[in-house]
Amino acid sequence: MKLLLIQGANMEWLGRRQPEVYGTTTAAELDALLLAEARRHGVDLDIYYTNVEGEAITRIYQAARDGIDGLMMNPAGFNYAGYALRDCLRGVELPYVEVHMSNIERRGIPSIPSSEADGMITGMGIDSYLLGLDALIRVVKKKRAD
Amino acid sequence: MKLLLIQGANMEWLGRRQPEVYGTTTAAELDALLLAEARRHGVDLDIYYTNVEGEAITRIYQAARDGIDGLMMNPAGFNYAGYALRDCLRGVELPYVEVHMSNIERRGIPSIPSSEADGMITGMGIDSYLLGLDALIRVVKKKRAD
Amino acid sequence: MKLLLIQGANMEWLGRRQPEVYGTTTAAELDALLLAEARRHGVDLDIYYTNVEGEAITRIYQAARDGIDGLMMNPAGFNYAGYALRDCLRGVELPYVEVHMSNIERRGIPSIPSSEADGMITGMGIDSYLLGLDALIRVVKKKRAD
Amino acid sequence: MKLLLIQGANMEWLGRRQPEVYGTTTAAELDALLLAEARRHGVDLDIYYTNVEGEAITRIYQAARDGIDGLMMNPAGFNYAGYALRDCLRGVELPYVEVHMSNIERRGIPSIPSSEADGMITGMGIDSYLLGLDALIRVVKKKRAD
Amino acid sequence: MKLLLIQGANMEWLGRRQPEVYGTTTAAELDALLLAEARRHGVDLDIYYTNVEGEAITRIYQAARDGIDGLMMNPAGFNYAGYALRDCLRGVELPYVEVHMSNIERRGIPSIPSSEADGMITGMGIDSYLLGLDALIRVVKKKRAD
Amino acid sequence: MKLLLIQGANMEWLGRRQPEVYGTTTAAELDALLLAEARRHGVDLDIYYTNVEGEAITRIYQAARDGIDGLMMNPAGFNYAGYALRDCLRGVELPYVEVHMSNIERRGIPSIPSSEADGMITGMGIDSYLLGLDALIRVVKKKRAD
Amino acid sequence: MKLLLIQGANMEWLGRRQPEVYGTTTAAELDALLLAEARRHGVDLDIYYTNVEGEAITRIYQAARDGIDGLMMNPAGFNYAGYALRDCLRGVELPYVEVHMSNIERRGIPSIPSSEADGMITGMGIDSYLLGLDALIRVVKKKRAD
Amino acid sequence: MKLLLIQGANMEWLGRRQPEVYGTTTAAELDALLLAEARRHGVDLDIYYTNVEGEAITRIYQAARDGIDGLMMNPAGFNYAGYALRDCLRGVELPYVEVHMSNIERRGIPSIPSSEADGMITGMGIDSYLLGLDALIRVVKKKRAD
Amino acid sequence: MKLLLIQGANMEWLGRRQPEVYGTTTAAELDALLLAEARRHGVDLDIYYTNVEGEAITRIYQAARDGIDGLMMNPAGFNYAGYALRDCLRGVELPYVEVHMSNIERRGIPSIPSSEADGMITGMGIDSYLLGLDALIRVVKKKRAD
Amino acid sequence: MKLLLIQGANMEWLGRRQPEVYGTTTAAELDALLLAEARRHGVDLDIYYTNVEGEAITRIYQAARDGIDGLMMNPAGFNYAGYALRDCLRGVELPYVEVHMSNIERRGIPSIPSSEADGMITGMGIDSYLLGLDALIRVVKKKRAD
Amino acid sequence: MKLLLIQGANMEWLGRRQPEVYGTTTAAELDALLLAEARRHGVDLDIYYTNVEGEAITRIYQAARDGIDGLMMNPAGFNYAGYALRDCLRGVELPYVEVHMSNIERRGIPSIPSSEADGMITGMGIDSYLLGLDALIRVVKKKRAD
Amino acid sequence: MKLLLIQGANMEWLGRRQPEVYGTTTAAELDALLLAEARRHGVDLDIYYTNVEGEAITRIYQAARDGIDGLMMNPAGFNYAGYALRDCLRGVELPYVEVHMSNIERRGIPSIPSSEADGMITGMGIDSYLLGLDALIRVVKKKRAD
Repeated sequence: MKLLLIQGANMEWLGRRQPEVYGTTTAAELDALLLAEARRHGVDLDIYYTNVEGEAITRIYQAARDGIDGLMMNPAGFNYAGYALRDCLRGVELPYVEVHMSNIERRGIPSIPSSEADGMITGMGIDSYLLGLDALIRVVKKKRAD
Repeated sequence: MKLLLIQGANMEWLGRRQPEVYGTTTAAELDALLLAEARRHGVDLDIYYTNVEGEAITRIYQAARDGIDGLMMNPAGFNYAGYALRDCLRGVELPYVEVHMSNIERRGIPSIPSSEADGMITGMGIDSYLLGLDALIRVVKKKRAD
Repeated sequence: MKLLLIQGANMEWLGRRQPEVYGTTTAAELDALLLAEARRHGVDLDIYYTNVEGEAITRIYQAARDGIDGLMMNPAGFNYAGYALRDCLRGVELPYVEVHMSNIERRGIPSIPSSEADGMITGMGIDSYLLGLDALIRVVKKKRAD
Repeated sequence: MKLLLIQGANMEWLGRRQPEVYGTTTAAELDALLLAEARRHGVDLDIYYTNVEGEAITRIYQAARDGIDGLMMNPAGFNYAGYALRDCLRGVELPYVEVHMSNIERRGIPSIPSSEADGMITGMGIDSYLLGLDALIRVVKKKRAD
Repeated sequence: MKLLLIQGANMEWLGRRQPEVYGTTTAAELDALLLAEARRHGVDLDIYYTNVEGEAITRIYQAARDGIDGLMMNPAGFNYAGYALRDCLRGVELPYVEVHMSNIERRGIPSIPSSEADGMITGMGIDSYLLGLDALIRVVKKKRAD
Repeated sequence: MKLLLIQGANMEWLGRRQPEVYGTTTAAELDALLLAEARRHGVDLDIYYTNVEGEAITRIYQAARDGIDGLMMNPAGFNYAGYALRDCLRGVELPYVEVHMSNIERRGIPSIPSSEADGMITGMGIDSYLLGLDALIRVVKKKRAD
Repeated sequence: MKLLLIQGANMEWLGRRQPEVYGTTTAAELDALLLAEARRHGVDLDIYYTNVEGEAITRIYQAARDGIDGLMMNPAGFNYAGYALRDCLRGVELPYVEVHMSNIERRGIPSIPSSEADGMITGMGIDSYLLGLDALIRVVKKKRAD
Repeated sequence: MKLLLIQGANMEWLGRRQPEVYGTTTAAELDALLLAEARRHGVDLDIYYTNVEGEAITRIYQAARDGIDGLMMNPAGFNYAGYALRDCLRGVELPYVEVHMSNIERRGIPSIPSSEADGMITGMGIDSYLLGLDALIRVVKKKRAD
Repeated sequence: MKLLLIQGANMEWLGRRQPEVYGTTTAAELDALLLAEARRHGVDLDIYYTNVEGEAITRIYQAARDGIDGLMMNPAGFNYAGYALRDCLRGVELPYVEVHMSNIERRGIPSIPSSEADGMITGMGIDSYLLGLDALIRVVKKKRAD
Repeated sequence: MKLLLIQGANMEWLGRRQPEVYGTTTAAELDALLLAEARRHGVDLDIYYTNVEGEAITRIYQAARDGIDGLMMNPAGFNYAGYALRDCLRGVELPYVEVHMSNIERRGIPSIPSSEADGMITGMGIDSYLLGLDALIRVVKKKRAD
Repeated sequence: MKLLLIQGANMEWLGRRQPEVYGTTTAAELDALLLAEARRHGVDLDIYYTNVEGEAITRIYQAARDGIDGLMMNPAGFNYAGYALRDCLRGVELPYVEVHMSNIERRGIPSIPSSEADGMITGMGIDSYLLGLDALIRVVKKKRAD
Repeated sequence: MKLLLIQGANMEWLGRRQPEVYGTTTAAELDALLLAEARRHGVDLDIYYTNVEGEAITRIYQAARDGIDGLMMNPAGFNYAGYALRDCLRGVELPYVEVHMSNIERRGIPSIPSSEADGMITGMGIDSYLLGLDALIRVVKKKRAD
């Protein structure tokens, strides 16, 4: 099973940006954690950071052409105006789980791409990614079983 | 660890209500599944169904008095106008994880109580409850560790 | 043919509440009138008053389990925020006719549950119930004929 | 008792227009049905079709001059912007019952003229007219009795 | 003079809920304080707590049947969507004074039932109840004098 | 000097429609009054009643082709949605004075065509027409003088 | 007959302010014109300029105490937020005609005080005042005749 | 192939109305141009001008009864409030191409009927009609081929 | 204890303005009543009337410099747009109780300055001032006790 | 004549993305079709795909420096928030025709850049591009002729 | 060069009002600083404080009559509803630079008069005035050079 | 002191784009002017142009890692939807001054990133950059002094 994680705008600054909200774990430490967890589940995980919405779109189409099985994304800075990203997700029809480290509902932050998600995990900090990986694997398996 | 699950308005009809959205698992079958999972995690889980928002509030205060450790809830019919429920959650300050079987964002359904959640799981069907139980246990443990 | 009439919040005060709008017929007098009319049509009519939205929901699910044929309701106080009630009606899929004694459109009062109604009668005072009973019987017969 | 029925814009296409919503009964068949029903009630019914809002207004004033007793109307295409028609209704002060074949509330369609109605019948298909005729006769009689 | 005080949703948690806003006086201590004050004024005060809006409605109708003279209420959790409660207040036409411990205007909280109040006291903490009792007695006396 | 007065939808009912707002002078009496006043001013006045917005438009274009000098209009029922009429007025570029018998501002009635008026007279009852004729003649003379 | 004209904020700059909209007649010239016209009608006219809304209010109350017969006003700068002025007009219940030199409807400018006017004249430049004086005298006479 | 072109309110004034926006070609010249173009394509084109929305509706139903193949329309004055026209188009289900001489999007003008169009051409002046005819013929041929 | 009462725009007209809402007690009679009540409480009360918002601001700053203990105000005409007044209240940080004679909530009237109030009394007519004085003294004493 | 076609975000997925809306023709097939049509018209057409709005802007400025004659664009994913793109189009002042394969008006999709278009073609599927090319050539020729 | 600085409502309280936002420099200290800076630039600076919007308007007209060269203003309390002030600025057409000590954009505070400013400086505390004086001198010199 | 200037979308077209708004100075000429001014102040200035919002974000993070002292930016095309850019600025917490050549407030253009600015200079044309550099240096020095 091949999965892709996209980290949206500003995620590269993880650990330094608003640590009272997002904690002090850095992007590099998070990646290590997630790759270990992926190995534990026996799946192949690719992680891609970008601050440019259009590059995220291009990366998703490329992944779809390469036969990827599922997508996890933290849209971050693309939350607010990510309409093109949302249309892209609608087009590729990949299993998609969205994750947010904070409870965006409580903070009044909309997520445009979330309307295309199969499921969403919010507010669990770093654990949002771990539960999100678990959730994405369940979705992929269920679709295969259908 | 003692946990409470509240099933909001209309959840008693699970399995018969809009099966194309919510599946055919009944409320009784879901309860059995969750109690087994709770045993597997070694935690104590109490499940309470009600169609009356005020009864849910009364139940939560009673649980807070009894020293419960955490709360999971599917507000269901209380999503739309559950302001009193939200104030209750704000008052008791229990660890709280909210679950929804469908992706309410995609369906344009607001959740008033969600602003008080530590985390939220949506769109995973029955798995939303299983991931939600896992998430709630993580939250409780983290709070104890602080 | 077994039918249920639910009288929503504040209907118990009929005859005393805003008589310039709702007239002076009391709830007890209305019940007698409707039961006589039901007998004339040869149908079985059960009448249930409640000020609690969740109790109306519980009553509807119980009626659905008991094999009722159709539902008439004056949501009254549930007009404004009856989202849980609306979801309940959507779930049970019973023939449903909604009645209002006054012309709620003219008075600028929304009815959330009305989106689930097969038909609606407004503005005819006590006659709204008589026409509503007639209408509900027609709906039930048409559904049987399909 | 002399009554007038006005069929608003697009009603001439009845039976061919969106039959999944409005059924397959044609305008001519509906007229025959209504005239028979009127005879049964012993009242005189005149039916007038027009796609032009101003012609409906002219027709109503002419009827008021001729001493008509009551008006039934399906504004249809005049629902959305029928402000002039509404003012006309306010001016003539005739007993007025409005009918709609579908549940316009459910379909999110406003009715501007409805603010002037004594009562309204929606969502009963062809039966909306039959119930509407009954309702109008009741209104006229009640006004006479005052 | 017989008066009723209704304490709305979440008031049972007084003293524990958001003490930085509502203080640390408990519900039991507040009751004792108010009953003493009522005795000092020579009036009879009944206090009723409920988390269920419909139960508050039922209690008000019962009080109206029992010939109560006036009503004081802190709608609390019923502030946001208490439309049925508002219609009930409109129907019984009792002298009604509404109290809030905090300045709800400053906190941006609407109060739906307040449109039916003769007067309102906000922002004075526990003193809101004492001033509210004084105000309600003045209203009742003035109405008797008319 | 040749002038045209257009009386919009519902003006034919003048004297009978909402007499507490519009008085009891009939359309025929108003016409006689205005023709006399026009003779006194030495101008030629043509009066045209219609309930159909498009007929008013057609009449204005015909008048423009016939070399009319100015237009007075009471849009009446065309106030609310008279966008096509407004575009027509913008196209012909005739001196145009709009009249209303009541203070439409106080009554919260918009007038779409009024944006094209050189001047407007409201709230003076029958006198609105007399002042309007005076105003229109001033506008025409001023334009000729330029 | 004693009348008062209030010239609101910025009217002192008349003749210099946006002459393409308001012309080049100065405030002093306008006053002379109006006083002559008032003499011609045999009425007593007092003119008062102020840039301070509260001073206009004080002046109106003083005039009401002095037994004035009617009020004309160009609110000018008070158009946008003149709520206190509006309440004052509602309180004194004087015959009131509002004038605007330009067609404020066409320019999209609201007039808060206009809701209290008996009539309104707009868009006629200096003539707005002359027609306004004529209109105000008609209103006063009509009220006396009642 | 038989096609109908409807020219909405104010189009009769083409060439004289706002020539800086719509140019100086008259309605008669445009008709000649279009009939020649229709002959070149070997199709039958009927052109109908009206200022009355309801007459446009009547004409469309008549054309539908006569077996027309497609409809082109410039709603012009019907853009703003043409709800009845929109419902008519929804009912007849004819191939429909809408044309506008100016870029209505840039000018902030809505088009209510456009929601029913298969395609739309804007902003090309007289060429909008020529491209529109081309487009309509393509739509009709494609539907026949299905 | 030195207290200041500010009576906002239009309060000078008390007793004559909308007596069905505000009663017939005049400003002079109210002042006498309040000064007597102040003496009874043993506090020093200064009363200031103004129709000009900026004068109220200047008066409040002067009072703050003179070491006043608390402020009571009926913003009246300053309710709607009193933003500068609100900023002033935020700046001086005086104990502040706001009073309204009518229930502004029921009448749909906003109060911009109320966001800065410690407490508010509405709807009690003249009694609003008496209860307001009581409330202000409680607030000042509580702040001193802190 | 040198023309540029920009295909906005998600157009690279043409033929695979929502085929029930956009058909099954791929981007490569569309390009071949358009280049052939360009050759037939004797014009030079350059086609550029990008998912990044800023890259489209950079490409347009480069084309303007290279002396291009006109621009055609399907903004696609840039429809919703393409404000920078719109400002760019306003700056370069190139002849610009916008195309959309579906009727975006019917689907409720806004197009921010469309306010800068000379003309727009919507809803014709692949034919939108062919008609758009024809339209753009007409615009360029007309501007040259001026 | 003669310049005027107007300090709007609440600026007299500078140094005491919200010092965490506006610092502890008093109005008198700021004046000394600015007059010294003006001397350094060799310009004549007049400073005027007022809490009354209409007095600011009167002062500006007087300055315009006296031949002033430019205006700097901190509208402060006039930010929110200063429509009359804005119209005044539009009328006098003086070079105008607006200053704010805090970043009003960040704090979500609108400034109505700012639409008439040549330039605006915000968020620099006391430095906003120094940069504003520099900016105003540049604007005046540039206008003289034209 | 090391400073960065970011020139947002469309700034590369400076001197050619809307010269009536932005003047005829080109981007290259502006850069020379600013670098000279920076030398005069003895600071190091880096200038970066981009049309891609995400590239601006990436550049800011890189500068933050390189230990830059302050940021000046003209968001230009990123004004309207630059939410990700705003979050970036919030994260890096650099001294930040925003500049705009025109008075964006007057033109009704929002600036999303401006909520993160320490100060803002608008409407001074090329001088906005010179004043902005001066302002940024003051902010950096003040922060060092704290």
